[in-house]
Formats: sequence, structure tokens, C-alpha cells
Amino acid sequence: MNKQELTKLLQSVKNGKTNVETALNRLKHLPFEDVVYANIDHHRHLRHGMPEVIYCEGKTIEQIAGIAKRMLAQKSDVLATRASEKAYAAVRKLDRRAVYHKNSRAIVVRHNENKTPTKGVVLVVTAGTSDIPVAEEAAVTAEMLGSAVQTVYDVGVAGIHRVLSKRDVLDAARVIVVVAGMDGALPSVVGGLVDKPIIAVPTSVGYGAGFSGLAPLLTMLNSCAAGVAVMNIDNGFGAGVLAHRINLLGEKP
Amino acid sequence: MNKQELTKLLQSVKNGKTNVETALNRLKHLPFEDVVYANIDHHRHLRHGMPEVIYCEGKTIEQIAGIAKRMLAQKSDVLATRASEKAYAAVRKLDRRAVYHKNSRAIVVRHNENKTPTKGVVLVVTAGTSDIPVAEEAAVTAEMLGSAVQTVYDVGVAGIHRVLSKRDVLDAARVIVVVAGMDGALPSVVGGLVDKPIIAVPTSVGYGAGFSGLAPLLTMLNSCAAGVAVMNIDNGFGAGVLAHRINLLGEKP
Amino acid sequence: MNKQELTKLLQSVKNGKTNVETALNRLKHLPFEDVVYANIDHHRHLRHGMPEVIYCEGKTIEQIAGIAKRMLAQKSDVLATRASEKAYAAVRKLDRRAVYHKNSRAIVVRHNENKTPTKGVVLVVTAGTSDIPVAEEAAVTAEMLGSAVQTVYDVGVAGIHRVLSKRDVLDAARVIVVVAGMDGALPSVVGGLVDKPIIAVPTSVGYGAGFSGLAPLLTMLNSCAAGVAVMNIDNGFGAGVLAHRINLLGEKP
Amino acid sequence: MNKQELTKLLQSVKNGKTNVETALNRLKHLPFEDVVYANIDHHRHLRHGMPEVIYCEGKTIEQIAGIAKRMLAQKSDVLATRASEKAYAAVRKLDRRAVYHKNSRAIVVRHNENKTPTKGVVLVVTAGTSDIPVAEEAAVTAEMLGSAVQTVYDVGVAGIHRVLSKRDVLDAARVIVVVAGMDGALPSVVGGLVDKPIIAVPTSVGYGAGFSGLAPLLTMLNSCAAGVAVMNIDNGFGAGVLAHRINLLGEKP
Amino acid sequence: MNKQELTKLLQSVKNGKTNVETALNRLKHLPFEDVVYANIDHHRHLRHGMPEVIYCEGKTIEQIAGIAKRMLAQKSDVLATRASEKAYAAVRKLDRRAVYHKNSRAIVVRHNENKTPTKGVVLVVTAGTSDIPVAEEAAVTAEMLGSAVQTVYDVGVAGIHRVLSKRDVLDAARVIVVVAGMDGALPSVVGGLVDKPIIAVPTSVGYGAGFSGLAPLLTMLNSCAAGVAVMNIDNGFGAGVLAHRINLLGEKP
Amino acid sequence: MNKQELTKLLQSVKNGKTNVETALNRLKHLPFEDVVYANIDHHRHLRHGMPEVIYCEGKTIEQIAGIAKRMLAQKSDVLATRASEKAYAAVRKLDRRAVYHKNSRAIVVRHNENKTPTKGVVLVVTAGTSDIPVAEEAAVTAEMLGSAVQTVYDVGVAGIHRVLSKRDVLDAARVIVVVAGMDGALPSVVGGLVDKPIIAVPTSVGYGAGFSGLAPLLTMLNSCAAGVAVMNIDNGFGAGVLAHRINLLGEKP
Amino acid sequence: MNKQELTKLLQSVKNGKTNVETALNRLKHLPFEDVVYANIDHHRHLRHGMPEVIYCEGKTIEQIAGIAKRMLAQKSDVLATRASEKAYAAVRKLDRRAVYHKNSRAIVVRHNENKTPTKGVVLVVTAGTSDIPVAEEAAVTAEMLGSAVQTVYDVGVAGIHRVLSKRDVLDAARVIVVVAGMDGALPSVVGGLVDKPIIAVPTSVGYGAGFSGLAPLLTMLNSCAAGVAVMNIDNGFGAGVLAHRINLLGEKP
Amino acid sequence: MNKQELTKLLQSVKNGKTNVETALNRLKHLPFEDVVYANIDHHRHLRHGMPEVIYCEGKTIEQIAGIAKRMLAQKSDVLATRASEKAYAAVRKLDRRAVYHKNSRAIVVRHNENKTPTKGVVLVVTAGTSDIPVAEEAAVTAEMLGSAVQTVYDVGVAGIHRVLSKRDVLDAARVIVVVAGMDGALPSVVGGLVDKPIIAVPTSVGYGAGFSGLAPLLTMLNSCAAGVAVMNIDNGFGAGVLAHRINLLGEKP
Repeated sequence: MNKQELTKLLQSVKNGKTNVETALNRLKHLPFEDVVYANIDHHRHLRHGMPEVIYCEGKTIEQIAGIAKRMLAQKSDVLATRASEKAYAAVRKLDRRAVYHKNSRAIVVRHNENKTPTKGVVLVVTAGTSDIPVAEEAAVTAEMLGSAVQTVYDVGVAGIHRVLSKRDVLDAARVIVVVAGMDGALPSVVGGLVDKPIIAVPTSVGYGAGFSGLAPLLTMLNSCAAGVAVMNIDNGFGAGVLAHRINLLGEKP
Repeated sequence: MNKQELTKLLQSVKNGKTNVETALNRLKHLPFEDVVYANIDHHRHLRHGMPEVIYCEGKTIEQIAGIAKRMLAQKSDVLATRASEKAYAAVRKLDRRAVYHKNSRAIVVRHNENKTPTKGVVLVVTAGTSDIPVAEEAAVTAEMLGSAVQTVYDVGVAGIHRVLSKRDVLDAARVIVVVAGMDGALPSVVGGLVDKPIIAVPTSVGYGAGFSGLAPLLTMLNSCAAGVAVMNIDNGFGAGVLAHRINLLGEKP
Repeated sequence: MNKQELTKLLQSVKNGKTNVETALNRLKHLPFEDVVYANIDHHRHLRHGMPEVIYCEGKTIEQIAGIAKRMLAQKSDVLATRASEKAYAAVRKLDRRAVYHKNSRAIVVRHNENKTPTKGVVLVVTAGTSDIPVAEEAAVTAEMLGSAVQTVYDVGVAGIHRVLSKRDVLDAARVIVVVAGMDGALPSVVGGLVDKPIIAVPTSVGYGAGFSGLAPLLTMLNSCAAGVAVMNIDNGFGAGVLAHRINLLGEKP
Repeated sequence: MNKQELTKLLQSVKNGKTNVETALNRLKHLPFEDVVYANIDHHRHLRHGMPEVIYCEGKTIEQIAGIAKRMLAQKSDVLATRASEKAYAAVRKLDRRAVYHKNSRAIVVRHNENKTPTKGVVLVVTAGTSDIPVAEEAAVTAEMLGSAVQTVYDVGVAGIHRVLSKRDVLDAARVIVVVAGMDGALPSVVGGLVDKPIIAVPTSVGYGAGFSGLAPLLTMLNSCAAGVAVMNIDNGFGAGVLAHRINLLGEKP
Repeated sequence: MNKQELTKLLQSVKNGKTNVETALNRLKHLPFEDVVYANIDHHRHLRHGMPEVIYCEGKTIEQIAGIAKRMLAQKSDVLATRASEKAYAAVRKLDRRAVYHKNSRAIVVRHNENKTPTKGVVLVVTAGTSDIPVAEEAAVTAEMLGSAVQTVYDVGVAGIHRVLSKRDVLDAARVIVVVAGMDGALPSVVGGLVDKPIIAVPTSVGYGAGFSGLAPLLTMLNSCAAGVAVMNIDNGFGAGVLAHRINLLGEKP
Repeated sequence: MNKQELTKLLQSVKNGKTNVETALNRLKHLPFEDVVYANIDHHRHLRHGMPEVIYCEGKTIEQIAGIAKRMLAQKSDVLATRASEKAYAAVRKLDRRAVYHKNSRAIVVRHNENKTPTKGVVLVVTAGTSDIPVAEEAAVTAEMLGSAVQTVYDVGVAGIHRVLSKRDVLDAARVIVVVAGMDGALPSVVGGLVDKPIIAVPTSVGYGAGFSGLAPLLTMLNSCAAGVAVMNIDNGFGAGVLAHRINLLGEKP
Repeated sequence: MNKQELTKLLQSVKNGKTNVETALNRLKHLPFEDVVYANIDHHRHLRHGMPEVIYCEGKTIEQIAGIAKRMLAQKSDVLATRASEKAYAAVRKLDRRAVYHKNSRAIVVRHNENKTPTKGVVLVVTAGTSDIPVAEEAAVTAEMLGSAVQTVYDVGVAGIHRVLSKRDVLDAARVIVVVAGMDGALPSVVGGLVDKPIIAVPTSVGYGAGFSGLAPLLTMLNSCAAGVAVMNIDNGFGAGVLAHRINLLGEKP
Repeated sequence: MNKQELTKLLQSVKNGKTNVETALNRLKHLPFEDVVYANIDHHRHLRHGMPEVIYCEGKTIEQIAGIAKRMLAQKSDVLATRASEKAYAAVRKLDRRAVYHKNSRAIVVRHNENKTPTKGVVLVVTAGTSDIPVAEEAAVTAEMLGSAVQTVYDVGVAGIHRVLSKRDVLDAARVIVVVAGMDGALPSVVGGLVDKPIIAVPTSVGYGAGFSGLAPLLTMLNSCAAGVAVMNIDNGFGAGVLAHRINLLGEKP
């Protein structure tokens, strides 16, 4: 039941065409339709600040292109994560502005590339070079949503001076995403250096007893630095979304 | 080497009492002392906004009281988590203002209880009544750090109307801590209703294949709602710290 | 917003006291309140066939008694699972009809003990004698909800003739709950003997590589008999609820 | 020993041709042969309502075709699950009526496609689009066995209005199969909305700490909604069988 | 239906008192009763060589004493494993011959203590002194069943000469039970020294990454010595039964 | 130091050519050489009854052929497990008598194919058809070592009559290898039917929560039938060796 | 067979009293006795530098005192780990010099307390104060064996300046034992600061997803610093032994 | 800030060109730059004894060649682990001296191949032939770093005489790396034979319940021989680095 229908019903009650009993019965089933309605509204709002996202893993090229097409028709920006080059080719056919981020395997189509990013900076840090693809997914996502993003790569704790030398950059950020595989120790160190929100992302980088990311995941959950929050293994996208949401809080007024 | 010593050294170089070579050697070992120094400074800063925290698990009553005494002497507020009633009795002997939060087993001593809390609200939500102790730990921590805190308990997804009926409260909060044991499904639902930072805390509530909190932990890490970050099992304290840090971002002028 | 309020609003629109615009705005926030309302209705309905349940693990005697008191005041039957003898004593003070099932640690208070049970039978079967407490929880729950319940205990597969000799009883039931610890093999055998719904409940009975019920849980999930559904370890209550719901389907005219 | 042999033996005792001692000895070994006999009877019965099933994983094309051929010769319907297109080609050579369900990789051959389905509806619900293949396996299976089947896809809890808007469909079903990967939270929500038997099927959809379906499996086993039963990861077939068996209970008279 | 009843039925057929049809019907349900009957027979046979066993874990003193009493009345030997001293006191009241094996917590009552043991020897070997209770359970069990048993304790692989110096004893045994916790390496070494059946029993002895016996269990399952079979963690009883069964094969004329 | 050398040394002492001191020193290092010596002797003995075994997994065709060549030169029988067809082709080039067992991927070369097998029978039983390759590895191994082997396939517990109908075969065997994947329940049933040594082999057959054989492994370790021993997942070879060793005990005069 | 016996045998051969054949036979079984002999010799050697160790977990006070008594009689130093105060009282009765290390629960009795320790230093570092007991076990063990030991406690990575400020101490050590629970990140940082052997010891300090030390264990095994070796959870004793052995290498002239 | 800059600053203070305040401010940010500086120094030192290492897993051929080129330009030796033949070809194009170790997949380029290795020997031992690649990685690494390396392969505990016969070699080494898959028992035996530092490396060799190296990892962590340290699964490189570091301690004058 959308707004028009609801208005009609109420007017019909007002006019005496529909009695209270009947209206009551129809309204009893309203909630969920109304929720749909509210949600659509909500979606519209979101579309202004945040594009819909296509998670490509397990979708065919046709499905990806199909969804992208519908979104572009609605003037929505497009973010497609874990996309193959073939998926990119298909999207690019739809819109020449499509950009492919090879490292993170993300496709981005923006209708207005000149939008001013946030003043606050989302900083994305990695422990090693192999963690970069996940980091880039976070960076591309946050950027797409409107955040200013900065990156610092390969500053793992086995060469502790590397992260220490970046203290200025850490201090300047509003929220920090720390991406690490293997021992996953970097978020604990960064979390001890600054007092900002830290989002830790374990990666599947490593071998043997790394158990495809379980080791850094557990490390991060047990971080001795207070206030470190953890994402799923390799979930750069989720980190980007959360970082942007936190970043936005500082932008208000 | 603190500021005074460093100044002295530099003046001694200036006066020619110490030659460049000797100063160079002394400065070579400076960094870490300097880091210590900076850290002390940082600590002093933190002490204004955020008290030190005593994690009581595995500490004796004497140790807890000893640390609390030293903190109180420095006019620092005190937060002691996972504290027994005995620990409380010992702290209360030191300071009559000590308050014991039975549910969360937290001791709090505040020097100025009339400080204005933040405008932004940290909302703490639980799925069940058994999750309340962990939620209270988060609430007490965030409150102690200066945040305005609101709580909504027992709105688990098996009675979905309960959380839906609290949508106004969800909408009014700046950051939301969602605490859940058993199936840990609540953060996914809340994360789908609002677009704010969500901090999910799994609890060890449950039995059998709940594996002491592993089940809700995995649920939350795999949340189908984007941007949900996860804490260690039963880590209400960490959630409180992170929620406060995020909340503060919105307070800045 | 309950039925009365909604009626009042509609009448106010009818009478022209409230204009359509205003009513529209109030109704926009209706859904969740309406869900609450619907849910209360639903609850009332449930209360006829099915009592509310108090899961006592982690609740104080006072809490248990408090909830029971409120339920009894509403003429609701009471089922309290995993209850201690102390909890029983407290409930018995409230109502002399309270019965304590020692094996399953369940408290039951029924307002009308002479209600006719279902024609269809819920059969509860165990592999060993140590599985009986979990089985009894299932039995007490289904019985409380109105099902006729029958039990067959200690017919594990290591003495296969035991379950084979009960084939008549298996054939006579409408739905079968199979409770087993250790190797958890019984549901596969029972599932191969009959073509009815089988609900398998693993128990924490066993030691070593039984890993507190993990072994029978995995066995049951991998049952080579088609159509066996599995509950959480030691979850007799859940099995009782599901068995009753399935059983009811066969009762309908 | 089949019925004829047994009759002969008894007549031979009656006629005095076989003495009691000898008959006793022969009967001592009867049971298991008799079980075979009973079982064959049972099989015959099953064949009327329910086709045999070929689980293709790990079988060669020749083996699959061989079994299908034997079944078709016996006028049995054929259901082959997890079948490749090659397997389909081979079965289609045997019988032109063979249908291949691409999504669920199921082959179906029905001798009488016009059989009236049950009045009661098996509803199959998924949280995401990637869960559809498993859902289709459940749907195809239940349908093949004679159930009327309805499906609702992509109504995961992160957009809670989606499942809420389907409440009518949920209310109209007799038994509901809920298929979900990632956080596996949907069965808890559905289980809280209706009071019917819920069969939850975790899928291997997800990544990282989803551990190939372990996460949703644990979520479902720990569901805070009472009476949710769980199948093995990706086991749509088993869910279809159980749902049909439950559905049939409501069909009687 | 026991032997007497069956005889009676057959004679009744012979005498013409019961017709073939009626007898057929009664026999149709015989199998399982007959299995019971055969089983009782089997039990009687077993009782000569092998006593029934009471697994005391989770049984009350009353239950243990009750079962023992019934067994003693039938002149059956009694073996009660994992029994407390209190259980022993209760059994001893029933029969003065009851012996309590403190290490293995086993109670034994034998009616004829002078029975000649087997010629073949069951050798029970442990890696450490803490593994002795489990080893003694195996030894007491095999001995009770009639096997000659020999033990060699504390010959773990970290002092490899210890087990090497026992080579004569290893060579003289017919079957060897090897009990080890911690690294569980002993069965691999023993399995390489002799070509007899080796039964490996992991124990929960150890700490940390021993995970209550998981480490030695995995070690033994992966033994590089061919032909080592493994029991559940701490399952001395099972090892004793299997060792005795294997040992008996060599006794046969 | 072999026998000849040792004799020479002793004679040299006897003759006074070597003094006691010198001999003592040489003998001090004897043990391990002597162990080698003893072991060689042992190997020679084994070679009569039992061929060396080539585990092909991870070996190149050249390595496999190389080892086989050396063995054949020594008139040793050859058993190569987990061998590819290519490996077979290479071995067949060396010896025309080479036989390839496709199911179990085993290559066998026997110098005397007419050797009388044991009187006692090793029975190999499987729950399903997919378990056959592992079963065949056990069968081929035991046969190669000299045992008479019999097989019974596809008698899993979901159709319990199948295994019950084979009771005669079970009763006639001396030792039984039970191979099962999925729920791994068959060994418990077989172990309850007979009182012989049972060797249970879990297979990686299954999916989802079967976790590549972990489920049946745990089932078997927790078997409620006493005296069931367990091998590593898919370890048919080990089961064949152990079964043969146990079988041999009954052959002895 | 010890040296004396061996000499006697050889002289007997020399004198012609024993012929070569007989000697050969006796020597054939020598190896293992000789291994024992060699081992005893080895033990004697060890006893000079390294005391035997009594692991008290699971031993009775009597057993502990009994072993200690025998050792003291042989003038051996005594180290008893994981000892209770009661065990200490019992040992102290035997020898007044017994010292009890409360933190590490270790008992030490040294015959000569004035022995000069090594020049090289074993440094034991902890991340937190709760890790100290495990660290002390390592320290007491290494010290007892003769190493100079230094300790640095509570320098976890969440306050990175703490460990950085100890760089001089790290540089001065010959081998470093790093003890950490929770995230177990400290060894990676220390391993990146120095190029000496690092022995990492995970502790069971932590909660929730720390899984009793599994988290820091995995962190350490996956350390991004090359050359970090790991001990079992809480195994301070093993770390002490290894550290001492490595330390000794640098002492050699 | 490097040495030159620091000297310049100090001289500027000395000359009065920079006042104390200004210098103080600049020095406040010095630490981390200074750490960098120290680290560079450290790197330079390392480069003499130890080449940088390229971990090739997950790097492109271009990246590997690029890093190698930069290193060769700096006259640094090159070690590239887990390298493909293609990577070798690329490196070989850069420098003809490049050597490819096929077994361990390591590329080595040494500028001076005639450097004298250490006097002390790093001994690398394997249990089986399949463990050799990991062992070779350790050997190549230690050798590259300057250690004399010796290897003993295929001496697993199932043929215990094999390792016993190598006792002289074990005794002659300064530090021993023991590499084993499957049951991982060898380090315990070797650790009991010698009193030197033992580095245990589990390999992923095995199947089924070996869980890709988890089984030998746990075995080694629980070794009953004191002082065995453990590396990550298949981490030959780490073992080589640690062994070399320990070995060097014995080289010092």
C-alpha cells in the first residue's frame, strides 16, 4: 500500500464511503506494506549518498550487467566488487565512464566525479604488500561513498619503525582501517598509537597454521588495544562502508 | 629523557659544554625515551577524557586496590571491569564515591559526577535478557568516558516486532552497540534498519553448538548487513571504548 | 497503537475532526506498533494452545518466580525448563499444582490437566539411558503443548535388535524424536525404518573425541537417511515444540 | 525366506513332514530374511508415492544412466540430484520426458505429470540469490514427491521489510524451508513470525569466516526461535523430503 | 517370543490346533522378538567368557548397585568402569569379593578367580606415568575377560632406549595396547618394531595445544607405521575388549 | 656391523689380535648398527609374507618405477597404492604380471599367484557404493599379504535390513573391516552384531558438515559398540595390513 | 649389560672360556642394553649441568617427595614445576634449602648456589602482567640450568613505546624468550627489532575467541618476523630449557 | 632525519643559528625518523651476513624480477623462496650466477660463492622423502646465510633404527632442524637423543586426519622431549633463519 492508496483509503473513510470496520481490517495488514514503502523512501535517500553495490562472486556476467544497467538508468552510481575483467568489459559497454580497479577487482561508475570528498580522512593501512587488494577494496568503497581516502602500505610490525614513521599520517586520519594477514598484529600496534576508531580486516594471506585467515582474525579479536573492531576475513568492502559511516559523523556541520 | 633533560642537552651544546659528537650519541638513543615521554603526555591527555581501566580477571584484591589507590591519588577516575564484590569493598574503603554495577561487575569512581555527557547517544541493544551483563559493561564504559548512553534490552529477532517497534530509538542514536548470544542474528537486522556504525558483540550465552560464543561470533562476522564490526566474545568494555570514540567524532564543533 | 486507538483515529477522520494529512502522518509510524499489536494478538492465540516458556539457565529464582507469577495471573500455563529444585519450590509457593520433572529439570503448571491430548503420537526414542533427561525435556514440552507422547528408551544401535523390536511403536507414531549421544547413529537407523518426520537431538553424553556432543551432531547432520532434521545439542525443548507443531498438522479435521 | 517359503515350511510342519526341532532351527535364522521381506514390501509402497533418488556426485555417467534405466523399466519416476548436463543428456536418451533443472542440477523424469499436488503448500524461502540452487533442489524434490511448492527468494534479514512483506505467503504455507548462507539469520526471523514447522538449510554461500557454511549452520542450530530444525549444509534434497513428509500429514482425510 | 513359545506354536501347527495362516501372521512379527531371543542366548554365551559392564559415569550409586545386584544374582561376573570409591563401597556390600582398582577406578567381582588365563599375552604399554590409569583400565578389562596381561610403563619416545630395551617383551606379546598422551608418538615407534596388531589409545594427559587428547589422537591416526588402529581418547576399556578379542583368535586350537 | 663382521671381531679377540679395550670401543657403537642388522633380518622375514609398499602420492613416475624395479630384482612382490594409470604403465613395462586395480588405484605384482590364502576370512564391508575404492584398497592389501578376503558392499544403516541379511557372512569372518563415509554409523551396528575384531575406516565421502571425513571419523571413535578400532580417513591400506595381522593369529596351527 | 659385564664377556672370549658362537648370541641382544648403558652415562653427564625435573601436575605429594628424595640422595639439584604449596612443604622437609617460586609454582633445591652463571643472558619478556607466571617458569628453569637470566615484564604492543624503550636490554641478550597471551603479537615486534634467536611462548591469558591460548599460538606460528620458534601454550619450562641450550652455545671458549 | 641532518642541526644549535626551543621541536619528531635511520643501519649490517629474501607466493614475475634487480644492483645476495621456474628464468636473465633449487623452489644468487661456511653444522633431518622440499628450503636458507649444512633424509620413527644409526651425525651437529609430516613424531625422538637446540618443522604431507599439517604441528607442540621449538607448517625458510642464528652463537671466538 503506497502513499496514494493510503490517502485514498483515508478520504474514503472521511467521505463515509468506507466504514471504520472495513478500514480497520485493511489497515491491519498495512504495516509490512508500509515498511516496504518506508524502505523505498530510505533507499532513495541512500542513493544520494551511497550507490547500490553488486557483489559479483557467483553472479554471471549477464546478471552483473543486468543489475548495472538498471542502476545506471536510475542515475545511480555503480560499485561492483570482486568483479572479473570480463564483468568490467560488460559494464564498460553500458557506460564509458566505468573504471576498473585491478588490484581490488572493483568496477566503479560515477555520474559526477567532481564531488568534493569529506574533509576527514579514512586511512587504509596494510601490514604487507599481499594485503593490498583487500585494502584497495576498502579504499575504493569509502572513496565511492564520498570519503577522502589515504593509504599507507607494507608497514607490518616485524619492521616496527615503518609504522612508527607514519605517525603523522595516523594522527591526521579520522578513522583507520588496518588490513593484515599472517600474524595480524598490526591493528594492536596502531590501536596503541592513536585513540581513534580502528577497523581491523584480517586477510587470507599466509599459509599453514594461518588457516586461510583464521590466525589474523583471532589475533585481531583478541587485540590488547582497546576499541579495535573486526571485519570478516578479506572483507575490504565492509570496512570501507563502516569507515565511511564513522567518517561522516565528523563531517556534520 | 624528558623535556627538561633534552632542553639541558641542547643548551649544553649551545654553550659548547657538550660537543656535537657526544650529543649525537646521546640522541641516537633518544627515540624510545622520547616515545615514552610523548606517551606520558598522551596519557595525561587521556586521563582528562578517559580513566585508566583495571581488568580485574586474574588480579588479587590487593593488586586491584593498589592500582586504584595510585589512580585516585592522581585524581584519575577509576573503572575496574569484571570485579568481584570483594574487590568493590576494597575500592570503596579507598573512596566512598565508588559505585558497583552488579550486572556488569564494574566498579566506577568518578571525581566529578556532574560532567555533561555528549549530545550524541551511544545506544546499547541486546537480543536477550542474559546478554544484559555484557551490554551493561559496554554502557558503563561509554558513560564513564563521557558518552550519553541509552539501552534497549531483549529485542531479539525471534520476535522481530520488538526491535522494529524501537526504530525511533535506533534512528536517534549516533552509534549502536548490538549485544547477542545464541544465533547472534540481531546485528544483521539492526544493520539493515539504520545506516550508522554498528558494533556487534557476541556473548557466550547459549549452549551446545553455541560453543561458548563461537556461533554468534561467526554469525556477526558474516553479517549480510554491510558495515557491521565485531568485538571479541563478551567484550563489552571494548565495545564501550570504540562506541565512545566514534560518538566523540560527532561532538566536535 | 492498539485496536482502540486505531478505531478512534479512523472515526476522527470520518467525523472530520482529523484531516487526511494528519492521519496519514500518524499512520506512517503505525507499522511497528501494529506489528506489536498483531503480535499480542498472536500471543493470545498461542496462549490457548501453548504456554509461554521460561528458560531458567542464568535467571535468578526471583526472576523465575516473577515471570511465573505474571503468567499465572493471566491464567497461562507455565513451562519452565532447566529449572533447579529451588526454582521449583518458589513456583510451587505460587501455585500448588506445580509439578517438577526431576529428570528433565522442568516445572509445569497446568490450569486444566484434563484436556484431551492429540490423537497422533509424538514418539521420543533414546539410544542410551544417559540421554533420558534430554528426551524427557522433549516429552514434557510436547505433552504440555497438548500432544500425546510415548517414549522408548535405551535402544541404541550397538544392540540393533532393541530398536527393531520396537517397530510397531515406531510405525504407530506420527512424528519421532530420536535422542542420542556418543556416535549418534540411531536417527539414521530409525530414519531408514519409517517414512515419517524424524527430529534428531544430539546429546553431550560421551567423552574424549565426542567433544561434548559435536560427534553425534555431525553424525546426525550427515545422516544417510533422507529427511532427518537436527536440533542443537541437548535441545530437548526445541524438539518438543517442533514435534508438536508437526503432530498438530495431522490433527486438523 | 519369503512368504511362500514360510507357508511351505509351516504346511510341512502341519503335515508332519518336518518335525518341530528342524523347523525351529530354520526359523532361528528367519528374522533378517524376514526383515528383508518386510523391507521389500515397504519399498514397493514407497515406489508409489516417492521415486528412488540417484545422488550423482561421484558416480560415472554410465552408472547414473544404468540406474535410471533400471528404474524407468520399473515405471518408477526418476530424481537425480547434483547431476551434470552430460548426465542429463544420457538420461534424456533413455526417456524423452526427462527435464533438467539447471539451477539445482536435478534431473526429473515423471511418468504422470498431471498428478494433483497436495493442497498444503511447501514454501521454500531464501535469504539471497546465491542460495537459490539449494532452494531449487528442495523445491524440485518436494514437487516430485507430490507436494505443491511455492518459492520466495532473496528476502534476507539485512532488509527485514522484504520478509515482512511476504507474511501472507508465510501464513498460507503448511511447512517452510528456509535456505540461507552467510549469517544464516533468516530462519530465526521466520521462526518468530509463524508457528509452523521450519526446516533450516545452511548453504556454503559466503567467504572467510563463513567457513563454507559452518557459520550459518551454527547460527541455525542456535536459533532463538523455538522449533527450528536444521539440515546439513547445502542439503536441499533432504529438506525437500522432510518438508513433503510433514506436508503429507496435513493431507490425510 | 522365546524358544518355549516358538516350540509351542510349531507343535500347535503340527497338531492342527493352529492353522498355517494364523501361524504365518504370528511369525511375521517374530523376527525382532527372535533377535531378542538370539541376543539373550548370545548374552548367556558371553556371560561365560565376558561379564556385562557398568559404565559408571553419570549413574547414581543406587543405579550402579542395582545393576550389580541383578548381575550377581545371575552369577555374572561384574566389571564397573570409572567408578568412585563410594560406588565400590556399595558394590562391596553386595559381594565381599569385590576388588577396587584405584588407578583405573574399576570395580571387579569374579565368581571364579582361578580360571586359567590365555596363553597369548596382551601387552599394555604407556608413554608416561600419567597414562597409567587409562592403561590399567585396558589391563583390568582384558584380564577380566580372560586374557593374560602384561604391562610396561613409562617408556615414551623422548628416551627411546626405554622402549628399545623392552623389545623382548614386545616380541613375546600377541597384541599390544599402546597408551600415550602429549605427543602420542609411542605407537608409531612400537608399530615399527613389531609386526603384531597395535591398538593405540590417546589420553587426555597434556596441556595447552594438547587440547585434552586431540593432539595424540591425531598423531596416532596419522601414524607412519602401517596397521595401527586407534581408540577414543582415554578409552582403556574399549582397547581391553578389542585386545582380548584379537588375543582369543590365537588361542583357538 | 653385520654378523660376519661381528664374528670376525670376536675371533680376533679370541686370537689375541684385538685386545679387550679396543673391542669394547668398537662394540660401544655397535647397538645401532646392530639394530640395522636386526632390522635387515626382520625385513628379510617380512619379505616372505609381506611385500614392501610404495605409497605413490607425491612420488614421480620415475621414482615409483625405480623403487619397483629394485624390489622386483629382489624377487619381492610389489604393492603400490594410490597409483595413477601412468604409474601402472611404467610398472607394467618392468613386469608383465603387473595388475592394476582401478577402483583402489593399486598396482600389484606377485611372483607366485597360486599361494594358498589363509583359511580365516577378512571381510570388508561398506556403507555405500562411493566407499568402495577405500574398501578395495583394504581388500587388495590384505589379499596381497596372503589373506582370504570377502566383500559386502552398500549395506549402510539407513536400510538396516541390508546388513542384517548378511549376518551369516559376518559370522563366518575372522576379522571385519567396516568402511563408511557420511554418518559413519555402520561400524556401531556391525560391532553390536558380532564379537570379533572390527576395524572401522571413515571415508571422505559426503559434503557440508561431513568436513571431508571428520564426521564419520568422530562417529567411529565414539562408537557405542565396544572394541571398535579406527583408522585414518580413507586409509584402506592400513586397515588391510591390520586385518591381515589379526587374521594371521587365527591361522597359527 | 654395563661396561663391566661387557669387559668380562670379552675377556672370557679372549681366555677361551666362552666361544665365539655364544658370545655372538649374547651380543645380539646387547644393543638395547647398551643404549640403556649409554643413556645412563648421558644422564650422569646431564646431572652435572642440568637437574632432573619433576612435572608435578597429576602426581601425588608422596610421589613428588619420593622422587625428590631419591634425587637429593644422588646429590642432584631438584626442579619441580607446577608444584603446589603442599608439595613444597613436603620437599622442604627433605631439604631446608628448598625454595618455592610462588608465581611460577616451581620448587628449586640447589646444592651449590654459588655456581657462576653464564656470561650470556637469557632475556625473558612478557606482554602483560598476567603472563608473568609462565615467564617465571622459563626464568627459574634457565637459571637453575646455569644461565644468567634477566626479565622485562608488561611491554605489550598496545603501548609500543614500552618495548622500544627496552631496546638496550634486548640488544644485550643472547637469546630472548617472549611470553604473550591475548593477541600474542609481541614476538613479531621483538623479532623485528633484533637478529637473535627468539622463543615465543603463547599463554592461556585471555577470554572468548582467545580459546585458551589458541589465538596467540596461531599468531606466533604465523609471525611475520623470520626465525621465531614457538612452544606449547603456557610451556615456560620448555622455553627455559631451549633458551639455556642456545645460550650455552655462545659460552663455549 | 639521518646522521648528517642531525649533525647539522646540532652544529646549528652550537653556532647559535638555531635556538634551543626550535631544536627541541624538531627533535620531538625525531624518534621515528631516527628509528628508521637505525634500521637502515641495521639493514646495512644484515646485508653483509644475510641477504634480503623474496617470498614469491602471490608476487608476479615482474615484481620478483624487479626486487631482485634492485638487490643485485646493491651487490646484495638474493634468496627467493617458493619461486616458479618462470621466476627463475627471469632472475637468471638478470644474473647468470642464479641457481635454482628445484626441490625447494628456491632461487639463489651469491656474489661470492667461496665464502667459508661456519664450523658448526646445521643438520636438517626428515622423517620421509615427501618432507624433503621443506627440508631443502631450510638447508638452502641456512647455507645462503653462511652456515655449513648437512642433511639426513627419510629416517622416520616407524623404522626407528634409521635415526638411531645416524647418532654420530646428530652428535656432530650444533643445531638440528627436524622436518616431519603425518604423525610428526621424529622431533620427540631426536630431542630425546641429543641435548642441542631442536627446531621442529611440521609439513602438510599426509591426508585425512592429518588436516594439511595440523596433526604433526600439534604433535610437535606437545613433544615429550623438553626444549623442542616449532615453526609454522611447511616453513623451511623460517627454520633455516633460526638455525643459522643459533649456529652463529657457537662461532663467536
